[in-house]
Amino acid sequence: MRDVVVVGVGMTEFGKHYNRTIKELGEEAIWKALKDANIDPMDIQVAYCGSTLSGITDRQAGVIGQLALKEVGITKIPVTRVENACASGSCAFHEAWICVASGMYDVAIAIGIEKMTGVDTSGVVKALADLTDVEIECDQGYTFPGHFGIVARSHMHKFGTTREQLAMVSVKNHKNGTRNPYSQFKKEISIEDVLNSYMISDPLRLLDCCSISDGAAVAIVTDKQTAKNLTDKPIYVASSVLASGSYGRPNLVSLEVTERAAKEAYEKSGLGPQDIDLAEVHDAFTINELLHYEDLGFCKKGEGGKFIEEGQADIGGKVAINPSGGLLSKGHPVGATGIAQIAELVWHLRGDAEERQVANAEIGLAHCVGGFTCGGVGACCITILKN
Amino acid sequence: MRDVVVVGVGMTEFGKHYNRTIKELGEEAIWKALKDANIDPMDIQVAYCGSTLSGITDRQAGVIGQLALKEVGITKIPVTRVENACASGSCAFHEAWICVASGMYDVAIAIGIEKMTGVDTSGVVKALADLTDVEIECDQGYTFPGHFGIVARSHMHKFGTTREQLAMVSVKNHKNGTRNPYSQFKKEISIEDVLNSYMISDPLRLLDCCSISDGAAVAIVTDKQTAKNLTDKPIYVASSVLASGSYGRPNLVSLEVTERAAKEAYEKSGLGPQDIDLAEVHDAFTINELLHYEDLGFCKKGEGGKFIEEGQADIGGKVAINPSGGLLSKGHPVGATGIAQIAELVWHLRGDAEERQVANAEIGLAHCVGGFTCGGVGACCITILKN
Repeated sequence: MRDVVVVGVGMTEFGKHYNRTIKELGEEAIWKALKDANIDPMDIQVAYCGSTLSGITDRQAGVIGQLALKEVGITKIPVTRVENACASGSCAFHEAWICVASGMYDVAIAIGIEKMTGVDTSGVVKALADLTDVEIECDQGYTFPGHFGIVARSHMHKFGTTREQLAMVSVKNHKNGTRNPYSQFKKEISIEDVLNSYMISDPLRLLDCCSISDGAAVAIVTDKQTAKNLTDKPIYVASSVLASGSYGRPNLVSLEVTERAAKEAYEKSGLGPQDIDLAEVHDAFTINELLHYEDLGFCKKGEGGKFIEEGQADIGGKVAINPSGGLLSKGHPVGATGIAQIAELVWHLRGDAEERQVANAEIGLAHCVGGFTCGGVGACCITILKN
Repeated sequence: MRDVVVVGVGMTEFGKHYNRTIKELGEEAIWKALKDANIDPMDIQVAYCGSTLSGITDRQAGVIGQLALKEVGITKIPVTRVENACASGSCAFHEAWICVASGMYDVAIAIGIEKMTGVDTSGVVKALADLTDVEIECDQGYTFPGHFGIVARSHMHKFGTTREQLAMVSVKNHKNGTRNPYSQFKKEISIEDVLNSYMISDPLRLLDCCSISDGAAVAIVTDKQTAKNLTDKPIYVASSVLASGSYGRPNLVSLEVTERAAKEAYEKSGLGPQDIDLAEVHDAFTINELLHYEDLGFCKKGEGGKFIEEGQADIGGKVAINPSGGLLSKGHPVGATGIAQIAELVWHLRGDAEERQVANAEIGLAHCVGGFTCGGVGACCITILKN
């Protein structure tokens, strides 16, 4: 297996881009990444595009990657769209990594694009609900907010996690998001704001939930030799892991698939949770971020509430979690999220994250899950990057 | 690059499975392929699932592969859905091939599933139209039937191709389809039937066009060493190529992307069009099959009409084209088609194709294109298999 280097990243601001097409969003992020990598578009050999709700929340039903790449003049290479619900972007990066790590190609581009504002809000909510096992979950009323509401109550009941601790996740991420020029919400909020926001799925309220967003993010990876000619700040992929598994089984308070994928990612990289300086994790709801602290090994099972309350997830804490603002503040254009996580890690590891920079960041972890709830199986993608 | 062997294939009958879910369709095809490969489900290491219109013509919006695999007890491995419009199944196979050829995995499964009957016919037609560049093509009325109607008229004008020669493609494929237990239409038709059928896009009529179908197809690939323990009839992947490119540019009567992908596939395999005993090609409309004869090198540009009229595309002719019945007769559950093509080739190369067997078949080619029309770029996937 060859070393793989992230040589360039780029993204659009996340938010509601009512008047921009997926082609325009993709083009902006691709040009930024090409410029960042100092690479000619003609040197890109293979492309993967993560996009989840194409044809559902936006008219364009397919071949998104080719459309966006055409805008920068790339028209002949293999281009494949990949989908794994909320982990679609992560999977595009994983496929690009496979291509270069295996020696099949030397230069690969991973693109994530989502346009969620092509339909009304109820249409988006319905589309997301259809990422569960429609027959046995969605159609029985078992949706993502429904499931994670139950998970939150279970965590509170079993471990004494408080409603305020959940809110602290959103407060922290919104604070980080104010320092990120790419984030959808650049406004600090208080615990009271969260507790007073509209009820979505008890105990989760509006500000416990991620948003509807449009956006694109791109990463370019190469082998080590090619990277030498492109960058003085190579960021290495220490491991890239994709797994499937159950959510909430055998118990509601862990994501078994995260635990297993993390174990594999740590083993393959020779690293452990103690080595991670910052992590971008899948905070679709506040409770999820607490679970990830535990399942990724940053604290013991049940201690997620304490971890956030003690400030250990802050920039400057034990592990900076979601310095970008995460899904809660940066936004969650589904297929773009996984690659935006990679971009955030790269900026920190290069020391380019400006106001939100994690000091002396050497090793970062990105984590995304996607699809289904407790009855089924979903995807989990974990990437560890290092200087 | 390692040799890759197709060790097992399986598929459902194609047709209108109104009362069956994508899980059920996938499960049937997966079990058949596992049995054919004589392999334990637990030995599968990685999976790719081709599905194009998920969430649009069927409620299930994502993670199709995990859902189908769960039905056979496979719940932990990496599973990724891929989409490339009509070439989605072919791309799933291509990704599985990359994994094994590169040495990243030893055993990979490629699944294609499509459920098109979850919405009414106008919904399917709209969904397919949205696989063009929606902004500059579909919304200007430039659809696939529209485009290929123009292509057919151009071919007739430029090369003297007759309306009857176009009809012969459908007549041949329906004849082949009557011998295929998996085909949607098992009824022979005449040239008059085609010429008298409903006008769709002048000069293309209903029986010039492929159908709306549900179905699933699966192929399992391994490295050569693993294959030795599984099968006495190894079918080798001589080459697997994915390319992007324009349709109908610089001229309307060729698919530039097919010509280029075919050149690469022939070069990589050390084979040429003269070596191909049978080919499954993308006959979405009758005119397309004529173009493919030419662009794949089975005859000269402009001689496609003569090729079909002389019976050279028949089983027993120079190259048996679409012995399965092709999209026109076997049906076209979009994401399943590319893998059904692989299954058909495998059965012929093993000598197991019964009534429709191509005598002494040693080398077969599968060809799928997907997405967009003349203004944009689409995908083309070509696979060459050999004994």
